[in-house]
Amino acid sequence: MKNTFGNAISLTIFGESHGPAVGAVLDGLAAGLPVDEAAIAAAMDRRRARGDGLSTARTEADAVEFLSGVYQGHTTGTPVTLMIRNLNTRSGDYAKTADLLRPGHADFTAYAKYEGFQDARGGGHFSGRITAAAVAAGALCESVLKSLGIRVYTHIAACAGIEDAPLSSAAGLVMPEPEPGHFALLDPGKEAAMQEAIRAAGSDRDSVGSILETIVTGLPAGIGEPWFDSVESELAHLMFAIPACKGLEFGAGFRFASMRGSEANDPFTMREGRIVTATNRNGGINGGITNGMPLVFRTVIKPTPSIYKEQHTVDYLAQTDATLQIKGRHDPCIVPRAAVVQNTLTAFGLLDLLTVRYGTLAQKHGLPESHSEERM
Amino acid sequence: MKNTFGNAISLTIFGESHGPAVGAVLDGLAAGLPVDEAAIAAAMDRRRARGDGLSTARTEADAVEFLSGVYQGHTTGTPVTLMIRNLNTRSGDYAKTADLLRPGHADFTAYAKYEGFQDARGGGHFSGRITAAAVAAGALCESVLKSLGIRVYTHIAACAGIEDAPLSSAAGLVMPEPEPGHFALLDPGKEAAMQEAIRAAGSDRDSVGSILETIVTGLPAGIGEPWFDSVESELAHLMFAIPACKGLEFGAGFRFASMRGSEANDPFTMREGRIVTATNRNGGINGGITNGMPLVFRTVIKPTPSIYKEQHTVDYLAQTDATLQIKGRHDPCIVPRAAVVQNTLTAFGLLDLLTVRYGTLAQKHGLPESHSEERM
Amino acid sequence: MKNTFGNAISLTIFGESHGPAVGAVLDGLAAGLPVDEAAIAAAMDRRRARGDGLSTARTEADAVEFLSGVYQGHTTGTPVTLMIRNLNTRSGDYAKTADLLRPGHADFTAYAKYEGFQDARGGGHFSGRITAAAVAAGALCESVLKSLGIRVYTHIAACAGIEDAPLSSAAGLVMPEPEPGHFALLDPGKEAAMQEAIRAAGSDRDSVGSILETIVTGLPAGIGEPWFDSVESELAHLMFAIPACKGLEFGAGFRFASMRGSEANDPFTMREGRIVTATNRNGGINGGITNGMPLVFRTVIKPTPSIYKEQHTVDYLAQTDATLQIKGRHDPCIVPRAAVVQNTLTAFGLLDLLTVRYGTLAQKHGLPESHSEERM
Amino acid sequence: MKNTFGNAISLTIFGESHGPAVGAVLDGLAAGLPVDEAAIAAAMDRRRARGDGLSTARTEADAVEFLSGVYQGHTTGTPVTLMIRNLNTRSGDYAKTADLLRPGHADFTAYAKYEGFQDARGGGHFSGRITAAAVAAGALCESVLKSLGIRVYTHIAACAGIEDAPLSSAAGLVMPEPEPGHFALLDPGKEAAMQEAIRAAGSDRDSVGSILETIVTGLPAGIGEPWFDSVESELAHLMFAIPACKGLEFGAGFRFASMRGSEANDPFTMREGRIVTATNRNGGINGGITNGMPLVFRTVIKPTPSIYKEQHTVDYLAQTDATLQIKGRHDPCIVPRAAVVQNTLTAFGLLDLLTVRYGTLAQKHGLPESHSEERM
Repeated sequence: MKNTFGNAISLTIFGESHGPAVGAVLDGLAAGLPVDEAAIAAAMDRRRARGDGLSTARTEADAVEFLSGVYQGHTTGTPVTLMIRNLNTRSGDYAKTADLLRPGHADFTAYAKYEGFQDARGGGHFSGRITAAAVAAGALCESVLKSLGIRVYTHIAACAGIEDAPLSSAAGLVMPEPEPGHFALLDPGKEAAMQEAIRAAGSDRDSVGSILETIVTGLPAGIGEPWFDSVESELAHLMFAIPACKGLEFGAGFRFASMRGSEANDPFTMREGRIVTATNRNGGINGGITNGMPLVFRTVIKPTPSIYKEQHTVDYLAQTDATLQIKGRHDPCIVPRAAVVQNTLTAFGLLDLLTVRYGTLAQKHGLPESHSEERM
Repeated sequence: MKNTFGNAISLTIFGESHGPAVGAVLDGLAAGLPVDEAAIAAAMDRRRARGDGLSTARTEADAVEFLSGVYQGHTTGTPVTLMIRNLNTRSGDYAKTADLLRPGHADFTAYAKYEGFQDARGGGHFSGRITAAAVAAGALCESVLKSLGIRVYTHIAACAGIEDAPLSSAAGLVMPEPEPGHFALLDPGKEAAMQEAIRAAGSDRDSVGSILETIVTGLPAGIGEPWFDSVESELAHLMFAIPACKGLEFGAGFRFASMRGSEANDPFTMREGRIVTATNRNGGINGGITNGMPLVFRTVIKPTPSIYKEQHTVDYLAQTDATLQIKGRHDPCIVPRAAVVQNTLTAFGLLDLLTVRYGTLAQKHGLPESHSEERM
Repeated sequence: MKNTFGNAISLTIFGESHGPAVGAVLDGLAAGLPVDEAAIAAAMDRRRARGDGLSTARTEADAVEFLSGVYQGHTTGTPVTLMIRNLNTRSGDYAKTADLLRPGHADFTAYAKYEGFQDARGGGHFSGRITAAAVAAGALCESVLKSLGIRVYTHIAACAGIEDAPLSSAAGLVMPEPEPGHFALLDPGKEAAMQEAIRAAGSDRDSVGSILETIVTGLPAGIGEPWFDSVESELAHLMFAIPACKGLEFGAGFRFASMRGSEANDPFTMREGRIVTATNRNGGINGGITNGMPLVFRTVIKPTPSIYKEQHTVDYLAQTDATLQIKGRHDPCIVPRAAVVQNTLTAFGLLDLLTVRYGTLAQKHGLPESHSEERM
Repeated sequence: MKNTFGNAISLTIFGESHGPAVGAVLDGLAAGLPVDEAAIAAAMDRRRARGDGLSTARTEADAVEFLSGVYQGHTTGTPVTLMIRNLNTRSGDYAKTADLLRPGHADFTAYAKYEGFQDARGGGHFSGRITAAAVAAGALCESVLKSLGIRVYTHIAACAGIEDAPLSSAAGLVMPEPEPGHFALLDPGKEAAMQEAIRAAGSDRDSVGSILETIVTGLPAGIGEPWFDSVESELAHLMFAIPACKGLEFGAGFRFASMRGSEANDPFTMREGRIVTATNRNGGINGGITNGMPLVFRTVIKPTPSIYKEQHTVDYLAQTDATLQIKGRHDPCIVPRAAVVQNTLTAFGLLDLLTVRYGTLAQKHGLPESHSEERM
């Protein structure tokens, strides 16, 4: 369904970079869930650009306006619609290069698909700006997961060649709370080096790629389905919706290619009366279903395609080769922002799969006594 | 929708390894498409195990019976249902180890999810056997794509540490037809070394991992959608439905992490009057939409978890640590079979996205004259 | 999704009248639900034709074979696939009239849609025979509803001009169990008159129309959604999938047109400590959501279009006017069979909506303690 | 999907009566369709109340703001989001009666479903106000249909006991353009009597019911699917989403109950070289698929439940019987407004089914030459 995704809950996103607004409709939430506007604002703030030389100079207040589904601080059970006005747009920068196809961007594919009717200003519907709406919706899902004991954490595993500390270094998998204005890292000591490397690329009028790693703790076993609604399929569908994401791996991921089965299999063992696995190479998933171990996956975020270096390209209207000099305001590195998108979309996807599972279980076991309803 | 996936066309799969049958329902095909039963049988044959020491000793004729939707050699436009009987099942082998959770398998997660009611024989609904049905359905889609000028080809890029020739070696991207009984390779000369490495792992009572690479040529630009129905999201959803798939990357994939934007961007250029890209690091996709260049992606297939080595595990019913010695018939390497699954599911996904695009375009342009209908 | 419907659980139907089989895939059921094969067989038997002059002379054993999802008498939680072989087909009768469009049938629309590739034998995919599969799947849902205290009952409210007793005559809304071989009636004394009227039409080489009324008791308040997933929308979608159904009304239905609001509104009142309505003109639904009162709706089933009277029509291939004399085996009245279809599809639709509601509620309230899962 | 519906195109609606706004997301439209804002405003105007004693005294400018998907007067091919601010709300009227359940309304079911967290002001998400957004989205679909030669027309077939002229009186089925400020009628001469009857009910502090009839001309044969995506199922799903709709019939509808097959069947015949039916009792649909004849259906719209007569009810919080005196602003007759909702939702549903059909056909026939794309 194009801009709508989900099974038991659904997320619809809309908007263009330089249109009136971007927004989202989140449908299928229970009534009475607290809407923590401060937590949502904090996620928006982490996603937001800062004009600090690391991200685009375009900064917006990103005030989230709820149009529906929230009343007196709680969800009403009807669609939650949120909107973020686009206030700070300078389309003029783009007009000059409108027909010069930006390499690595969707300019050409938008022409092919929309036959010239796309709103090309600022990337239009392809702009990373649309993720602001997804983050706000996903942050709401994340707070619901927290109330169920489930934590989602995404750190920058590598950026511009600098690696964060490995996951194994996080004692008991207790993740640091992401701090406003700082990179999400297991080892905060790596931030300076990463920022320096990013700035170096920026001075070269270039951009950098990175790896994001997400860890989810507190997930019960039994979430997800074999085949098409596997946890991997659901999360992959969401992660590859992020335009810059070009790869995804769960657990040991591509390292499985050079492993043998005896290394790849996670042995089961009893620990404090519960079944766990001694290792977690499968990233908390067997047969598409959570096994109660931490869920772990990594994505690759390609270097932001908007670079200030002169590039070879084509003038679409003239159908001739051409040279492009990008102007406008662009992130030399979008990964700090992408981390927030990845984290919140993961929260949405897992809440969706949890809701599916809960509904199915209740066919057999019914609801808690306190919620049995009157009937005649 | 759990065992159903697709937008304009939908694929539903069903069955258990040792139940009466596995099968699929493929809905949304046009009427009058030729059903090339020989091509389907050939795909089934490539997926089928051979008892040659490389794949499981369980071999089945895998005769595909069409229950509906096919008449006089063509699709009827109604759901195509196909069924493959399970004939050669030896459940006894499994009964002995039923409560010993096989590491890397879905035994534990099936218990957690299905509360003991799963049909655990031979892996039940989690068995690779279910892919037989997906292959038959996908092979039908593949023949439709061929008639539209689109070719899908999957080769074993690496297996047990042996690499196939790189994609760049395929002159003009003309791929060899996969030969019955042989590995799908760009360089057939690598087959012997791969098979030897697989056999060596087998003698160690172990198994091996691999990389599969898929190339699609002939795709028009403009297929796929920004965000949730991106080509990457659609294909990722399908690929991660394959239980052994633990990673997926498009184009340069994880190598983007250490690239700069100036390397990652594919410059546009004019060639013979058409817009192409000089390189193809984005794997034929920009902004989730095909750009007319070959679509390229790679998956990692983890080593088959069924190994004959003794493994540490848990007895689920006794809730005690235990030692497992797997019996039964299992592939030391499933990648030649997985290649066929990947290829045919890719065909299904792309036909789905093509159909979506065609429908949308016709809102504006109508249908070809020859298909304008009577109306009053 | 064409032949698939449902939100939390999904039903896919397939098959052609004279093809190898008809069948259904029912996905999304919990594991561990008892599969009462006798109850399913009883529903199949009620739907089945009897060759008694009232329904078609074509009788089939209608043995339901479960291909997947059922093991040791319980659902496994994976797709339940069932198949009913077509054994007793005489296509010859149809061949003679193949190009003569049968009025009231889908012969012409099938040509328009499928461009001549449809399997026209016996009506193909349009045949009432396909409902056999839906009945088997729906009967399984009905038994799940029963275990939750919900009863679905459909009676023939009117047939061939003879009316059953009104719903108000059913004391306490305790409905009679439908008896094998008998019409589902509130007043069994009306059966003889109905059968006589049907036979009279049959002697005139004609057929008759009817009204079916469904009553559901035991439904909790709060099922269904405002707008697109209203109980009315869900059930209407299913009822109008039955080819002969041309009208549907809830509660007072079309009588609302001549009512005033003061008559149409059902006053709320307290009864034995619970909120009920004094009347039930809205058929148990307010704002698309169940209010805890009995759900009541009626459909109109048009006269079976296969009549033995000579009819005016068109020869499709010759594109000339023509005269049609239908042969083959056809029901002069399909309503006793349609009643079973309506009843079981209603059960499916309500179980779907219940599952949606249960999942949503659990987002807030969690699951019963006994089903809280291990996590780490 | 709760507040989202559609196959190839999807409509999502959101909003509460006294919240910040109501709105809709319409996804799946082609790029480059003209957005006729005047036609949309005209539909909004017809739906809007006028404070003329016939409809509620609450009037709003109902200015439609497009938030996305429209650029320079055309669709961009991305989600069209539109929003209508709620400006003229007087919640105070409702506060006084908040716990008194209004008979015929969703007050009680909202409590049961949302556990007290619903935004009850003005009916919240159940309010007819939400239809404003659906009308704006549907009006856009209607203009697309017009460009394809398809016209949708809905008239008030009966209201407060006064009947419009029958459809058979419309020569050549050329429908009058609905005039602003007037009832949609085949015979404009009936308006005065209808309005008088409505005002009479209003003076009695009561309200009236009605019948709406929709006729669609220009539809090609072959739209819709057998079974779950029948034209009847699609339209029924949409019509029963309108809260006041309690019944729906196609063609002869409930009159089929007392017909014989020989009357119910529409004989085919050749007319000017084309196949048509001599009568149209099946309302342009056979087997769920359009047959090229005009599509005809009728709904019953129950009397608006908000009446000024004193009513018996229950105080929900006190759980005691009570007496209700409704205040606020309410239509004594909503049918002139419901007619616009019915008309535009019909346009949406038919455009959805057309798009599905076009996509499927193109699998076999490809696209018109002018839209064949570049490929390599």
